[in-house]
Amino acid sequence: MRNYTEITQLFETALQHEIEKIKQLQPSNLYSPVIYTLNMGGKRIRPALLTMAYEMFDDQIEKAFPAAMAIEMFHNFTLLHDDMMDGATMRRNKETIHIKYSNNTAILSGDAMSIISYDYINRCDTQHFREIIEIFTNTALKICEGQQYDMDFETRNDVTVDEYLNMIGLKTAILLAASLKIGALLANAPKTDAQLLYEFGFNLGMAFQLQDDYLDTYGDSKTFGKKIGGDIVSNKKTFLMLKTLEQAQGDQLNELIQLISEKTNNLQQKIERVKAIYNHVDVVSYSKEIMESYYNKAIAYFDRVNIEHNKKSELLHVAQKMMKRNN
Amino acid sequence: MRNYTEITQLFETALQHEIEKIKQLQPSNLYSPVIYTLNMGGKRIRPALLTMAYEMFDDQIEKAFPAAMAIEMFHNFTLLHDDMMDGATMRRNKETIHIKYSNNTAILSGDAMSIISYDYINRCDTQHFREIIEIFTNTALKICEGQQYDMDFETRNDVTVDEYLNMIGLKTAILLAASLKIGALLANAPKTDAQLLYEFGFNLGMAFQLQDDYLDTYGDSKTFGKKIGGDIVSNKKTFLMLKTLEQAQGDQLNELIQLISEKTNNLQQKIERVKAIYNHVDVVSYSKEIMESYYNKAIAYFDRVNIEHNKKSELLHVAQKMMKRNN
Repeated sequence: MRNYTEITQLFETALQHEIEKIKQLQPSNLYSPVIYTLNMGGKRIRPALLTMAYEMFDDQIEKAFPAAMAIEMFHNFTLLHDDMMDGATMRRNKETIHIKYSNNTAILSGDAMSIISYDYINRCDTQHFREIIEIFTNTALKICEGQQYDMDFETRNDVTVDEYLNMIGLKTAILLAASLKIGALLANAPKTDAQLLYEFGFNLGMAFQLQDDYLDTYGDSKTFGKKIGGDIVSNKKTFLMLKTLEQAQGDQLNELIQLISEKTNNLQQKIERVKAIYNHVDVVSYSKEIMESYYNKAIAYFDRVNIEHNKKSELLHVAQKMMKRNN
Repeated sequence: MRNYTEITQLFETALQHEIEKIKQLQPSNLYSPVIYTLNMGGKRIRPALLTMAYEMFDDQIEKAFPAAMAIEMFHNFTLLHDDMMDGATMRRNKETIHIKYSNNTAILSGDAMSIISYDYINRCDTQHFREIIEIFTNTALKICEGQQYDMDFETRNDVTVDEYLNMIGLKTAILLAASLKIGALLANAPKTDAQLLYEFGFNLGMAFQLQDDYLDTYGDSKTFGKKIGGDIVSNKKTFLMLKTLEQAQGDQLNELIQLISEKTNNLQQKIERVKAIYNHVDVVSYSKEIMESYYNKAIAYFDRVNIEHNKKSELLHVAQKMMKRNN
């Protein structure tokens, strides 16, 4: 069994091979933003999970690459359109497409990427083609729903923790889940195992997104890669914020509401004051508890996958690494 | 065999049934713009062609409706995103989505429509599923290419007639072609007949788009539905403009170049002056000649479809009506 690094290296080689082919396509104003987006990097976590799930049941992992390409292409399409909708100017230290090129380029090249992802799905050599394309399509539509909820939440003041969890489930967790299930189906895994891997991926994705929210406030800027406190500055309704709004009372609740409703230029002070209220309600404990709960659920599903332990160790290792755990 | 009106009425009923289902979906901010777009109307020409091609080979036409829905959904998605990219404020006397709602709504609801179109393709009950989804995907990507060429042409001064014909082929004609081929394949038509219908649709689509360009300048505003001269006002590089740029010489060529490069508030005068140059090179003859040529090609392909004459008459009648012909 190959480890995560080996798998991502193999996938990256296959991806670069596909990029060379896309370079030949015309019109270049449509396709060069696609290449730029794919080359922005990223951890390639979704194609890696798909391929590792495949390898649990079959060793011809190159058969997983068209679907892995489809998932990575679709994920990058959502980042491209989301960045435009969010007005984000930078991603991974590079200018976003609508800044580097234009709004129209961002719209149309994104549209093309969404369709190209189906072109890769169409290349899958599998007896489960119809099931795979249905999973892919349902997942894609639910990601749009998640993004819409995320945008809806920006202008709402009554978002609940449950609504937030539903939103990140749609926007983030189901694509990890679908990646694993599609990988397993391509390798002709038993249906129950494919579904267990889906549940594993969904719960892992939930834990991972909650951890990302946690690190945005409590992480180390050196290892997190983004500026700490960004979510607080932009009044993002994360688990930390929503749980604190639920738990805080009296003056502290009023102060928090004031902090998120008034404009300020003293961002550092805002971060510190919000964090003080977070700390007062001990939101870190709630956060760790819910991350733990999703992670444990993920592992419980994974344990039930009916295959020799040695075939499971690399994927388990990825899950542990994603959650920065040693146990 | 049902005629065009009967087919579109049946399709419209099926479409409204689907719209009722979409109304139940959440979040409503994602799905209500989808419904608004679908209800903007239009001639439903693509789903009608698909269904009529189906009926030539099989009478259970309801089996064609999921694919017909997919094509209509995808076509409406392209209109939605194109309107945003073009900055169009009105379509069919209704506000476009990015005006009525917001830019972000136009992007995300359009994305959802593109994916929903695959959801309808996935519902096709057919042994030719993989071929159909490949045709659909290739067509969808080529439509993006066509839109990119169209946008590229806006800032180029050296567009040739051939490049223009290639662009409208991608942007318009291939979707008509694909609609007919998919309809035929769903009805298990012989491959050669399905391909002949593709070629028929492609050439008919070319003739139809060229006619649309012609009517934009030379049509009757009462029957055309749009203001006459819009393409001239916006310096659109249509067949009429490009052929005239190719044919005009000396002072007239210089005048035309000046007319398209300088800004003016006297739009009526601009239309009349450009038309005078069009008339001088007799661009109407060139236009009628090329429309005739594509139309005749279309009919020649259609004639070769190997099926009884009475099964072909309604589709032939649609082609004649599209080109406002009686022969």
